[in-house]
Amino acid sequence: MSAATAISGKTRQTIVADDQALDTPLIAVDLDLLGRNIAEMAALAASYGVALRPHAKTHKSPHIARLQLEAGAVGLTCAKLGEAEVLVEQGGVTDILIAYPIVGDIKIQRLLHLLDRARVIVAIDTHRAAAALSQAISTRARTLDIYLEVNTGQDRAGAYAGQEAVDLAVAISQMPGLRLAGVMTHEGHAGFSGPDDIPIIAEKAGQALVDTAERIRCQGIEVTDVSVGSTPASWFTPRVPGITEMRPGTYVFHDNNAFRHGRIGPDRCAARVVSTVVSRPASDRAIIDAGSKALALDPSPSHPGHGFIVGHPGATIARLSEEHGVVTLPPMEHGFDVGGRVEIIPNHICPAVNLTDELVVIHNGHVVDHWPVAARGKVQ
Amino acid sequence: MSAATAISGKTRQTIVADDQALDTPLIAVDLDLLGRNIAEMAALAASYGVALRPHAKTHKSPHIARLQLEAGAVGLTCAKLGEAEVLVEQGGVTDILIAYPIVGDIKIQRLLHLLDRARVIVAIDTHRAAAALSQAISTRARTLDIYLEVNTGQDRAGAYAGQEAVDLAVAISQMPGLRLAGVMTHEGHAGFSGPDDIPIIAEKAGQALVDTAERIRCQGIEVTDVSVGSTPASWFTPRVPGITEMRPGTYVFHDNNAFRHGRIGPDRCAARVVSTVVSRPASDRAIIDAGSKALALDPSPSHPGHGFIVGHPGATIARLSEEHGVVTLPPMEHGFDVGGRVEIIPNHICPAVNLTDELVVIHNGHVVDHWPVAARGKVQ
Repeated sequence: MSAATAISGKTRQTIVADDQALDTPLIAVDLDLLGRNIAEMAALAASYGVALRPHAKTHKSPHIARLQLEAGAVGLTCAKLGEAEVLVEQGGVTDILIAYPIVGDIKIQRLLHLLDRARVIVAIDTHRAAAALSQAISTRARTLDIYLEVNTGQDRAGAYAGQEAVDLAVAISQMPGLRLAGVMTHEGHAGFSGPDDIPIIAEKAGQALVDTAERIRCQGIEVTDVSVGSTPASWFTPRVPGITEMRPGTYVFHDNNAFRHGRIGPDRCAARVVSTVVSRPASDRAIIDAGSKALALDPSPSHPGHGFIVGHPGATIARLSEEHGVVTLPPMEHGFDVGGRVEIIPNHICPAVNLTDELVVIHNGHVVDHWPVAARGKVQ
Repeated sequence: MSAATAISGKTRQTIVADDQALDTPLIAVDLDLLGRNIAEMAALAASYGVALRPHAKTHKSPHIARLQLEAGAVGLTCAKLGEAEVLVEQGGVTDILIAYPIVGDIKIQRLLHLLDRARVIVAIDTHRAAAALSQAISTRARTLDIYLEVNTGQDRAGAYAGQEAVDLAVAISQMPGLRLAGVMTHEGHAGFSGPDDIPIIAEKAGQALVDTAERIRCQGIEVTDVSVGSTPASWFTPRVPGITEMRPGTYVFHDNNAFRHGRIGPDRCAARVVSTVVSRPASDRAIIDAGSKALALDPSPSHPGHGFIVGHPGATIARLSEEHGVVTLPPMEHGFDVGGRVEIIPNHICPAVNLTDELVVIHNGHVVDHWPVAARGKVQ
């Protein structure tokens, strides 16, 4: 069966038909699978009655941001100011959340410049960062929308849900130039649990955020947006009453990590690293040209090794160096002669996309476009 | 003591003095430390009487390639054809080893084009890849220099040292258009051992390569170059009689991995990720703006966590997400207020450099230049 087989076929596996015409390694994106993933999440958000503000960190692509907006997203989310600048300038995004504290004079000046071109919401979780923003914004007679980031169990950033978050919300609401537009959390820790626990952990995080929002409102502060975000928890957190917005990212492509919860399989993964076998030093070992510079080193609990080789579930990408993927093979495995091609679903697609300059866009097995990863490497 | 203190001072720690003038995260490179590292390796190669062909994968910078050539390198090494193209076009490199099999028609055509502009040596370890190269080259009435890659214990790519390598050498020497210029190995496995074992493992690998070269010569085939390469093994492998060339890469910057063997400490590390504290959610936890998109996820046996924070040996970069570094702090640790800056020595500097578009060049604590990482992301 050819790679160009209709998408609905259960036997469809690879997405690229004419792979020998392409230089490798590269990231190929199947338009149909991408469209399906975008539509499905838009429908899920609509079914919960919450706004969808996708996280652009997964694709870093103005093209895909536009597709998400066309499917009904209210705006985009990004991690860094540099990503926001690209999405506003190249993606036609006019409403963007920077889900990350803006710290330091250089970034504040860049933020002020960006505010001339789009509505920007900034996540803040410390008094110090808020005060510096307030000082800079208020002298310009501007108002900046703030989401207070709340820690609901991830223990990364965020003010602790409850009294600490309430106190910080009160302080922010009194700072000139800042408007507390909402509260947000990233319940990423839910995704690290198994399929039985994820609904419980996700809803607990969502409830903690809703409760915190209520306590802030009891202080007489209007809190409009109650925003959660994490693809694996998307089916659970937003159904907590009081949640108003969801910010999943990975869903546009899905990846090996997504397999863990049983909802997503390889046939739903829209982005694959296409790689060539460059050496076959032993019968049980092949070397592919995708190493950590193509696949990234993020682990996955769903499949051993550094990615899932489509059509070869018994093969394991056992080790990565920068340019070498060391694949261990079961006896008699076909397709790993020197010059052969494989499609790999990375463990974590976001950092893999960040390693490439362009996405090779595939429709019915063939290349139809190249999309620059315009916000790649925008860590500042 | 300021960061601009003379390089020789043992108390010198950070390399950037005016860090608040810089946006973060970024990679800063200290010119003096870089120059010292380049000179030291050139002197080491000279002391062994072997040629130095540094691996450019660490810096991916035409500027630094030029510095290495000026210090006496005979040419450069790179992993991928795309890196070679950049170094030849932008770095004035006229003699380059691609230490990686060239597989597939597209790459062979690119190689032929590059051969018009530089001497290129290609590493090969399979009959199939050699035969395809031979066919393409010989129809152009050209000759391509080949290094036969030999597996001396790393068990990644390479024909096994001994009879397998000899048989392949004989086959290659009979293929039109190819000239067996030498044999090579990457004894990277030596670096994974401790300080007591590394000399033994490195010399064993070097001896296996020399023995294989001798056996090939017994077949009447001239083998000029016997090439080894790995920074941690640089003090050991090249001293095996019969080795003619060394290809270390990481030494230009050094990194956290280098600390393992006791020879290199943080004061020798020329490249640091400069990062800002963006949140301080708990007394024992700070969030820095360098995550896996700045530091990469490579582990290190030398220091727990994801990098060494200069001047803060008790702090641990315990977790990375893409844009967040979660630092756990000992009691009363200073310097981690929101807005504070730190310099981090990555576990593995090569993938960290591959994540950034430019190196910020520092002299006496101040920015003096910006060097593009021109071969960044050239995985093809």
